[in-house]
Amino acid sequence: MYFTSDNAAPVPPEVMAELARANDGFTRGYGADQATAAAQEMLREVLDAPDAVVHLVTTGTAANALALAAFCPPWGAVFCHSHAHVAEDECGAPEFYTHGAKLVLVGGDHGRMDALALGTALLRTGAGGVHGVQRGMLTLTNVTEAGTVYTAAETAELAGLARAQGLPVHLDGARFANAVMATGATPADLTWRAGVDVLSFGGTKNGLMGVEAVVFFDPARAWEFELRRKRGGHLLSKGRYLGAQMVAMLQDGRWRHWAAQANAMAALLAEGLATRGVVLRHPVQANILFVEWPVGTSARLRAGGAMFYDMPATEGQEGARLVTSWATTEADVAAFLRLI
Amino acid sequence: MYFTSDNAAPVPPEVMAELARANDGFTRGYGADQATAAAQEMLREVLDAPDAVVHLVTTGTAANALALAAFCPPWGAVFCHSHAHVAEDECGAPEFYTHGAKLVLVGGDHGRMDALALGTALLRTGAGGVHGVQRGMLTLTNVTEAGTVYTAAETAELAGLARAQGLPVHLDGARFANAVMATGATPADLTWRAGVDVLSFGGTKNGLMGVEAVVFFDPARAWEFELRRKRGGHLLSKGRYLGAQMVAMLQDGRWRHWAAQANAMAALLAEGLATRGVVLRHPVQANILFVEWPVGTSARLRAGGAMFYDMPATEGQEGARLVTSWATTEADVAAFLRLI
Amino acid sequence: MYFTSDNAAPVPPEVMAELARANDGFTRGYGADQATAAAQEMLREVLDAPDAVVHLVTTGTAANALALAAFCPPWGAVFCHSHAHVAEDECGAPEFYTHGAKLVLVGGDHGRMDALALGTALLRTGAGGVHGVQRGMLTLTNVTEAGTVYTAAETAELAGLARAQGLPVHLDGARFANAVMATGATPADLTWRAGVDVLSFGGTKNGLMGVEAVVFFDPARAWEFELRRKRGGHLLSKGRYLGAQMVAMLQDGRWRHWAAQANAMAALLAEGLATRGVVLRHPVQANILFVEWPVGTSARLRAGGAMFYDMPATEGQEGARLVTSWATTEADVAAFLRLI
Amino acid sequence: MYFTSDNAAPVPPEVMAELARANDGFTRGYGADQATAAAQEMLREVLDAPDAVVHLVTTGTAANALALAAFCPPWGAVFCHSHAHVAEDECGAPEFYTHGAKLVLVGGDHGRMDALALGTALLRTGAGGVHGVQRGMLTLTNVTEAGTVYTAAETAELAGLARAQGLPVHLDGARFANAVMATGATPADLTWRAGVDVLSFGGTKNGLMGVEAVVFFDPARAWEFELRRKRGGHLLSKGRYLGAQMVAMLQDGRWRHWAAQANAMAALLAEGLATRGVVLRHPVQANILFVEWPVGTSARLRAGGAMFYDMPATEGQEGARLVTSWATTEADVAAFLRLI
Repeated sequence: MYFTSDNAAPVPPEVMAELARANDGFTRGYGADQATAAAQEMLREVLDAPDAVVHLVTTGTAANALALAAFCPPWGAVFCHSHAHVAEDECGAPEFYTHGAKLVLVGGDHGRMDALALGTALLRTGAGGVHGVQRGMLTLTNVTEAGTVYTAAETAELAGLARAQGLPVHLDGARFANAVMATGATPADLTWRAGVDVLSFGGTKNGLMGVEAVVFFDPARAWEFELRRKRGGHLLSKGRYLGAQMVAMLQDGRWRHWAAQANAMAALLAEGLATRGVVLRHPVQANILFVEWPVGTSARLRAGGAMFYDMPATEGQEGARLVTSWATTEADVAAFLRLI
Repeated sequence: MYFTSDNAAPVPPEVMAELARANDGFTRGYGADQATAAAQEMLREVLDAPDAVVHLVTTGTAANALALAAFCPPWGAVFCHSHAHVAEDECGAPEFYTHGAKLVLVGGDHGRMDALALGTALLRTGAGGVHGVQRGMLTLTNVTEAGTVYTAAETAELAGLARAQGLPVHLDGARFANAVMATGATPADLTWRAGVDVLSFGGTKNGLMGVEAVVFFDPARAWEFELRRKRGGHLLSKGRYLGAQMVAMLQDGRWRHWAAQANAMAALLAEGLATRGVVLRHPVQANILFVEWPVGTSARLRAGGAMFYDMPATEGQEGARLVTSWATTEADVAAFLRLI
Repeated sequence: MYFTSDNAAPVPPEVMAELARANDGFTRGYGADQATAAAQEMLREVLDAPDAVVHLVTTGTAANALALAAFCPPWGAVFCHSHAHVAEDECGAPEFYTHGAKLVLVGGDHGRMDALALGTALLRTGAGGVHGVQRGMLTLTNVTEAGTVYTAAETAELAGLARAQGLPVHLDGARFANAVMATGATPADLTWRAGVDVLSFGGTKNGLMGVEAVVFFDPARAWEFELRRKRGGHLLSKGRYLGAQMVAMLQDGRWRHWAAQANAMAALLAEGLATRGVVLRHPVQANILFVEWPVGTSARLRAGGAMFYDMPATEGQEGARLVTSWATTEADVAAFLRLI
Repeated sequence: MYFTSDNAAPVPPEVMAELARANDGFTRGYGADQATAAAQEMLREVLDAPDAVVHLVTTGTAANALALAAFCPPWGAVFCHSHAHVAEDECGAPEFYTHGAKLVLVGGDHGRMDALALGTALLRTGAGGVHGVQRGMLTLTNVTEAGTVYTAAETAELAGLARAQGLPVHLDGARFANAVMATGATPADLTWRAGVDVLSFGGTKNGLMGVEAVVFFDPARAWEFELRRKRGGHLLSKGRYLGAQMVAMLQDGRWRHWAAQANAMAALLAEGLATRGVVLRHPVQANILFVEWPVGTSARLRAGGAMFYDMPATEGQEGARLVTSWATTEADVAAFLRLI
């Protein structure tokens, strides 16, 4: 019963198989191989974006930080949710790659940026002329860190506020597949049709060993990106092994099935927990649950073999975060619920 | 007949097997898994360095740049060979990770730094007080970019010059295995016993999909390294797949066998080429050859299916670089020689 | 009636006289001159800190950013008030000089950091291990951006929270003289005796053309500071003209008299405004007033020749900021009050 | 007899007078004052460049580094002479402000870049695609560090090579006035008519306390420059004192007279030294001399009251650098020559 994170799961057998297939003979290096080309083409199709430029890296932090650096100057403000991954979980990677841009934290319930708060932040930033940092770009996260999602319309509203000020928009889609399955929207509707300029398309949390795609819907910045990627040490010489993983995930709609399984298991878990009186702190829309249960519950669950992270809680309660993945089974959920 | 680079080869089946073995069940993330722990322990044994701290990353550029940044301040000079990988092939990654340190180029024949030139550079740097950059650190490369090696004594001489000035020493060992096999020296003699403080221990060019280890013989900087690695986007959440590759390479001395095969094929090629009157521009000591042959030869070889990179040459000649790998066979060499 | 800023005033005649005195014959460059030495010695006396290392720069932004960079690593968090100058008015200079450190905003009324809010921020930062930025340092501002002051005890309380976590403490004293006169405390009590490690000692807002001192109470980081200063282009070759200005200000306690005049005029203005029903948004403790008056007042004042900056206000009111300086006279204040 | 550097001299009385004139009443801050506006306009006239954007800073290092950063990306190569000030005397300021650009050293006798060497460096850089840094910009220095000058035609030739590759060109004119007087060329011919995009126009070495102008002949990058300047802590709040100094220098052609005096004294010194058998290592074209004289001479001169810097020399000789300024007199020169 491993609910610590979606990165605790093994990779599906199809990934191993595709890696084996790619491991045949000699090939060109640095992303000029066939597997990478296939992955790029498949992603353009998935996103209905024939002109998009796609590049692969190994971590979500690299994808996000490189994507932000491609658009935001060192004196720019990156508007992000107060609890965004870029703000709290990347040890300052955005600041590092942008050479010192400033993350401006925008509030909002359940991990979702509040449009009014964003509007206010946009208006305040840069109003002091040369004395303050300038408006740089907007970054949204879907699925959010709270496990909630933005619909296409919600994405478009927030992106629209930024674009009205001439700002580019980034989407951190480390769990994009889960957002697609949760909203039922098309990948295009959740991204470029809603005003997203650059997307971190996650593979790792959805089942790969370590591959994320950075998708530039506007190719203008793509060459600079390549230089930044190399300079950041993120251009792998044997690109085929990244490409192959991404191919394995995109083929036959597997990326949807894996995410659907994770989402379904989270829903099942949420339902079972609610039935047992456990408080869900945020709506459970994808594959992450934030819960509160009575003090002592966590220890009992762990004694029973469950694994998860502790979270702050209201007094008298214990908090926890539970994450499901492609590998979570109904049996896992049932066993966990039995321990409650 | 693929002689473009050692990164064009597939990975040995043992790597695939170890990945499959590691892909079993759930595990802890971010390098806290058993495969990573095993790889770290095996590397400490290989290097006879029980107190060394070992961390894994996916590229040589990341390993080098992060290692340099751990020791050299932004106002420091990194002394490197004029044609070092850090100087010519990393798009400024050392400058990026060190926040602007200056690479001071030191000459020397056949890719090997000249001790007198290093001494002069050390004396000149920092002599202007606050007006110039300060002496930062030394970085050597073994196998060098010219395909030659440093013996343990040669390493110790150069490292000694730096250490006499209080400077730390880095060794770029992207092809360290080939250097070990070429010199017959122990890994310890080629590194910490010769004065090396931090080592980039290469896996990728020796057969892995993309894993390099950074080895701190002095653990004092290791925590800062972890922060820099995370900040650079180089901390993989599913560390087991890096650990497993490294384990596959280190087990049963495979890293030595793979490198020995590459070196042997280079020697065979060198011998055959010399017999046929081809000029070898540098001593062939490991798995890289720089050759000059009459104009027209390159086209003929390529027409016959050979692949390699062009290089500058003296007039009337054509230059080329040939690299062998664990996957190069005697048949490949023979076929290539037949085309000459 | 110039109340825009203390930097709008001319310099006192004593500054011109000292510059003329220093402009005599040839001298050594880069701060090795006698005027700089005299300024450094006088500052050590003023601060009762015989071992302090003192360096001069030309702007408060440079002083602050260089001071922060001397202590806070790129992956560190700088705890500062939500409206600190370093956060809002330096276009990201702290991020630039620290190579990407993160400013963590701490709230508190009237420009003063709330101790509880600081404590919470300290506890939260770095708790995520390598995933988040680490606790870096604390920076306080005295006089604050709201025109209020910290007493020595208040400074010590906040500094103590930081030091308990092993963090160094910076004091932005762009208006330090005004704080000294407002609190009646000694310079030592407001700084190193309260736990301050490094001080930006302001000269420009108190009457100089453009000189600030950075004072290291602990000299350990001073050499690195010199390198960073040079690298930032802030080492002036003709240091005597900075030294002379600082000497002019420190001699005969002028720095106290100038600040006392500014504070007194602010108090007079505050009293007059309060009498006339103008709302003071923050306690007026030094030389800055934030006021609210009925809509239309600002235009009328400007028509009468008054100059000041607009500020946000509650509905139906207009907001303004008024700053006095050494050059503000009772006549200026009286003329202004007549226009209300 | 102070020949250490042109920054050892006092400032001419006209500078003090203009400062006093500017020190009258209140004024707007941050360069929005009348003195700054006057200086900007005078510089546009001097350079015959009515559309140029002019900004003032306090040091040559800041001027150069900010100018380079305005045009060269972090992954760019800055082509400079092997002994350029930016390469040897700024403690890595260009690397700091550009966020890690690489200075590519180009050789050439007597401090002047060799056109063939520049051409070769241009061709080699960036040829490796994403693996190496890209061609960024060219920076020339006139007067060079060796005390020689480029004519307008020589400047145009070198700038032309860069521009043919689409690169912008910077001119470090810390001693630009001396170059103008030495060549007899117009400021326009030595700069924008020769292909220069951005100029560091020196004031400090020619007699000011500390003011340099950065002149953008193409205004496109000027706003970014303002942000970088602020972020670097180089925007002085009391801009009038910079403007006034520059006005003092530009008025009535004083900048020419001061430089002419320095050049004339250097020529007189060179003639006298040559007569006495002293070897001049570089042609003396402006206000710097590099000399070699028999061992023991330096000590004798210093005993007689002369001041200068030692330099490396051929065996049996001593080397020295002598610099003249606006304040050097014929009596100084005569006294020095008597000591030889």
